[in-house]
Amino acid sequence: ALKLWGGKLILKSKLDAYDGRGNEVITDKSQIAGAIERFSGGGVYAEKIVDFQKELAVMSAKDIEGNISSYPVVETVHKRNICVEVYAPADISPAIAHSARETASRVVKELEGAGVYGVEMFLDKEENVFINEIAPRVHNSGHFTMDMCEPSQFKQHILAVTGQKLETPVMRAPFCCMVNILGERDGPVEMKGVEEAEKIPGVSVYIYGKKPTKIDRKMGHINAIGDTMETAKNKAMQARKLISI
Amino acid sequence: ALKLWGGKLILKSKLDAYDGRGNEVITDKSQIAGAIERFSGGGVYAEKIVDFQKELAVMSAKDIEGNISSYPVVETVHKRNICVEVYAPADISPAIAHSARETASRVVKELEGAGVYGVEMFLDKEENVFINEIAPRVHNSGHFTMDMCEPSQFKQHILAVTGQKLETPVMRAPFCCMVNILGERDGPVEMKGVEEAEKIPGVSVYIYGKKPTKIDRKMGHINAIGDTMETAKNKAMQARKLISI
Repeated sequence: ALKLWGGKLILKSKLDAYDGRGNEVITDKSQIAGAIERFSGGGVYAEKIVDFQKELAVMSAKDIEGNISSYPVVETVHKRNICVEVYAPADISPAIAHSARETASRVVKELEGAGVYGVEMFLDKEENVFINEIAPRVHNSGHFTMDMCEPSQFKQHILAVTGQKLETPVMRAPFCCMVNILGERDGPVEMKGVEEAEKIPGVSVYIYGKKPTKIDRKMGHINAIGDTMETAKNKAMQARKLISI
Repeated sequence: ALKLWGGKLILKSKLDAYDGRGNEVITDKSQIAGAIERFSGGGVYAEKIVDFQKELAVMSAKDIEGNISSYPVVETVHKRNICVEVYAPADISPAIAHSARETASRVVKELEGAGVYGVEMFLDKEENVFINEIAPRVHNSGHFTMDMCEPSQFKQHILAVTGQKLETPVMRAPFCCMVNILGERDGPVEMKGVEEAEKIPGVSVYIYGKKPTKIDRKMGHINAIGDTMETAKNKAMQARKLISI
């Protein structure tokens, strides 16, 4: 595969991969044994590197009868392999949005179990949609649903796993920007600025109560809704600056 | 106004305008009196010509309490001032779609009465949305709802005018292409090809029963649904070729 794809591929663990863990870019075959050694032992995939223009995600819920209900397609932005921002909905054409939702539905139909699945995708420069990773659970890229949609991904998940009918999501706001609050140092939690941030209209702050804080640990997130994505983004960034942990 | 806008404007009748009737492009002030003479007498607007990239439309329903429910934004294509094709949804960004729906809602809120309103708009090259014309009724650019949405614009209109609650439209198909069947000659109706056209999967044909046929008279329309707009368009065009009236 390394030869076939021009000397570069990504090796992925089939299990226990998240936030970039369980993924390694391979450019020389000498790296392969070490990568597999570091993975959890459940087998690996070798995948061609996708030169993507955007990363997308779709949260799809499946009830115990196999009915599927998906949320709008979002754009996710990652830094250091960690999701840092989510824009809902993604700024893509109706055709790409449909393709992403269809792809997510098709995949989720094939999986066992009921509940919410986070389907992460790449949109390449030729506007093809590729599956990147599937999280069989409520997901960071679905936190926007807490303020933008009724029901949220959490309520939808509970409906699904308790054998109830899924609800068709209704939009409570046209745009939402979600920003993760990542730890910026290692040490005890010292929460500041949350109340002030929540005074910004349309801003909600969720703190997970994790202790201690660590560099890049997901400590909470901010959802900012708005009538334009620009407004939502600005509010989310303004709120993020006010908060320190 | 003619001087202010560089020697060109469009004069529109406030009442009884449709299919280009009640609209005249004015390039010399000598044309003005004649145009007003031909209009229905309810007064005129002078409007700047919009150099549009696309024509959009939103069907918005209002119930007797003033609640509004809108359908997805569509693109309309006109020839000889008559709507010939509608693409649902329009291939526009979520931001433009939101702006168009908001504009339609704002306008419909200001109008008296309940029911469905067809709000026709221009999208200019700087991506601004302008109102073009408002039809206070079910509308040609909303015929796609008969096959793509539940409820259709007709059911929604009946709910609105009989004092019932509006339904939130659910999409039955991701894409729909509506093609008008315009008369191609003046004379008695000789309907051919309808049954054959309806054999194409996803194609529905609606014939209005008008007699006689006349050049450019709206005799019926075709709705073709599909998993992509390309599929829907191809089916609609294929169906149109089979039909003669």
